[in-house]
Amino acid sequence: MPMLAPLSDLITGIHHVAFAEPAGAIGLRAFTSVLGLSVAHTEHAEGFTERMLPVGDCHLQALEATGDGVVSRSITRRGPGLHHIAFAVKDLDRAMEALREQGIPLIDERPRAGGMDTMIAFVHPRAFAGVLVELVHNPQP
Amino acid sequence: MPMLAPLSDLITGIHHVAFAEPAGAIGLRAFTSVLGLSVAHTEHAEGFTERMLPVGDCHLQALEATGDGVVSRSITRRGPGLHHIAFAVKDLDRAMEALREQGIPLIDERPRAGGMDTMIAFVHPRAFAGVLVELVHNPQP
Repeated sequence: MPMLAPLSDLITGIHHVAFAEPAGAIGLRAFTSVLGLSVAHTEHAEGFTERMLPVGDCHLQALEATGDGVVSRSITRRGPGLHHIAFAVKDLDRAMEALREQGIPLIDERPRAGGMDTMIAFVHPRAFAGVLVELVHNPQP
Repeated sequence: MPMLAPLSDLITGIHHVAFAEPAGAIGLRAFTSVLGLSVAHTEHAEGFTERMLPVGDCHLQALEATGDGVVSRSITRRGPGLHHIAFAVKDLDRAMEALREQGIPLIDERPRAGGMDTMIAFVHPRAFAGVLVELVHNPQP
């Protein structure tokens, strides 16, 4: 284990936790009707719809598969359920650089636009023993 | 969807997000050495070891299977990866009562002791379309 923790000072918290489910969004409806969470933001992407539900300072992210794509493939492979964890970072470029220096495999080689005006990058799940990790930079926290 | 959100005023945030992995804790070592997170609390249970890594106001919980039990069964079924999401609640008894009134299946019929002096209860994953949900009350927040 290195003496210096290169990323810990860039990580400010958990930005969101995502779950994946098939079209129909039964889980989303349970989180809204049973727990009383509400959808603050909806975004339609290729093959899925993404909805953000605020919980304290974090969000639960509901990923509904609407066609072929990464979400439906994940459901086929693992079943519906938790999909990834997103850490909020102060500086996405520096965070990605720190990962690259350690030889960590990234899914996104460059930051890309995420929902709610964020910039994001996914790390390959083999870096964290099967846990899919996303880094999120929110310019207006 | 009901007009009243019975639980939303009891939920204060995400307490932790847990992932499960086999003995050896390769994922835990990646989260500490690569991301620089640190273990604030360790607890040994029947068949697994649970470690809490603070991230902002939340925690990442590493569940390492050490023998037969719920964690190793989950890994056999779904593979290693994200395991459950735990919501912090102000009043666990009232939260469980609100779930029961809505006919939501609970794994724990009564609150039980969790790590770090908390009281916890798990909801059956079929209530949330495959997402395993835990409720946590922390008497000293």
